[in-house]
Amino acid sequence: MSFDRLCEKILALRNPSVAGLDPRLEFIPAHILAEAQQRCADPLEAAGEALYLWGSALIDALHDIVPAIKPQCAYYELYGWPGVRALTRLIAYAKARGMFVMTDGKRNDIGSTMEAYAAAHLGTSAVFGQAVAAFDADALTVNGYLGTDGIQPLLGVCRQQDKGIFVLVKTSNPSSGELQDRALAEGGTVYRAMGALCEHWGEDTRGQFGYSAVGAVVGATYPQQLAELRGALPHTFFLVPGYGAQGGTARDIAGAFDSRGLGAIVNSSRAIMRAYEKEGCDPRDFAGAARREALRMRDELREAAGL
Amino acid sequence: MSFDRLCEKILALRNPSVAGLDPRLEFIPAHILAEAQQRCADPLEAAGEALYLWGSALIDALHDIVPAIKPQCAYYELYGWPGVRALTRLIAYAKARGMFVMTDGKRNDIGSTMEAYAAAHLGTSAVFGQAVAAFDADALTVNGYLGTDGIQPLLGVCRQQDKGIFVLVKTSNPSSGELQDRALAEGGTVYRAMGALCEHWGEDTRGQFGYSAVGAVVGATYPQQLAELRGALPHTFFLVPGYGAQGGTARDIAGAFDSRGLGAIVNSSRAIMRAYEKEGCDPRDFAGAARREALRMRDELREAAGL
Repeated sequence: MSFDRLCEKILALRNPSVAGLDPRLEFIPAHILAEAQQRCADPLEAAGEALYLWGSALIDALHDIVPAIKPQCAYYELYGWPGVRALTRLIAYAKARGMFVMTDGKRNDIGSTMEAYAAAHLGTSAVFGQAVAAFDADALTVNGYLGTDGIQPLLGVCRQQDKGIFVLVKTSNPSSGELQDRALAEGGTVYRAMGALCEHWGEDTRGQFGYSAVGAVVGATYPQQLAELRGALPHTFFLVPGYGAQGGTARDIAGAFDSRGLGAIVNSSRAIMRAYEKEGCDPRDFAGAARREALRMRDELREAAGL
Repeated sequence: MSFDRLCEKILALRNPSVAGLDPRLEFIPAHILAEAQQRCADPLEAAGEALYLWGSALIDALHDIVPAIKPQCAYYELYGWPGVRALTRLIAYAKARGMFVMTDGKRNDIGSTMEAYAAAHLGTSAVFGQAVAAFDADALTVNGYLGTDGIQPLLGVCRQQDKGIFVLVKTSNPSSGELQDRALAEGGTVYRAMGALCEHWGEDTRGQFGYSAVGAVVGATYPQQLAELRGALPHTFFLVPGYGAQGGTARDIAGAFDSRGLGAIVNSSRAIMRAYEKEGCDPRDFAGAARREALRMRDELREAAGL
């Protein structure tokens, strides 16, 4: 009912980073694509198989040094239902290897529809008298534009099943300010108002580390806002995208952490997934290259967080 | 590259309504559940089969009187990847029967990730040298909180493949105002700012009826804002939820239409899907009851729109 489990993993590995698993066939090594095509005749089913072979190898290479993975739904949906099946299998695989899984779906809707998303991604579905976990991640990213009606249905699942959510507050992209930075007549900005809602929504779900089950997405590319929000939202755990490929540096994200080195987890997708290309090593060693990059990132973030 | 195809269907059937397909096993008639369980041993696969049997029967009953269906992703994800496979099959089935399909996914992300959602839901995916359509709906609902970076990747697909999007502007739920109604320092509200962005994003994609490929979601439950936005956003087609079960009446949505009876399509999910329960007819006639309710709604909306 909080981010305690995540905090414990971060402390145990002294690593506040999460590996984004955002696959495109274009950068999955050829030997994996060949194996997947041998196993499945249908192109989308072969794509799904490739995603699973690729992702499970990365999980094997990262699980003892990185506390969490963040699969991005878009890249699984890109390969249709077989891609979504691969997502399901990868979530289960990562959890079995002890990793914390954050599904990056940025889901949003209201009432009974949001209940369905909550049950699907974090809880269980009622199916012919059984409670079946459909995706069963530990946390889900959500978009709060619809207000409390879109968040409330998630809180029940977070409480009952010890899960968490990350609400988009200040995103890492160049145009995030178009709406999020607008000044409100009451003072403050749209993103500050969203941040305040996160503190409010999480009030009754705080854990032993002081953080609630309602986290926030705050981009590494806006270091000033990141530090401002860390101060303003003391009970809100941050998921920080935009580090590395998008331009955010270790210095940029230093303000995201509290004095214990907690309070934020920093995502890297491309730099880890495509490390073998940058290294120029044998593509068959893609998982080894990912591990080397993840270790480099761990050391950099360890220092930034003071862990 | 606009909503021309949708406008033509609305005019041909003189019906500005869309049937929401938001299934839960709890209200799928027992004979369908039994057939699905007979076909599939795995509970989630049986659930997916039930969704398909149910949805295709509704499409058969509605396709010649209702121009469009709107499947809500949440209820398919609720049943895991087999639910998502059922969604894929239903989209294809509805299109083969001539219906316009709007996937209600409220997807949102940035850059290459949004490109993946656009390719997945509206376009095609590059898979082993082939261009494969993964979901292939005609339109997708999206959340614009991330600004232009989250919308731009969709516009290319809309232009090239004659597809459309609906951006959340003023949603139908009670708490929609928490963020959307906040007054901006520059004047206006957050939802007005989002509406103005829709007009801007759609500028280069206007069709023969004057509407662009960038529509807006505006709830039936806020009739004043609906009429205000119709005036302010002359090139933005509206998807209007909240009619019926959520409390919006035909009078409430009259202001959503232009002088030709175009400019808006009104969703009904529960009233159509669960018409057999309200009627008290034999559950085996659930599709017939749905058709009777859809005809009643058509006549009511025809009058409201002046079609």
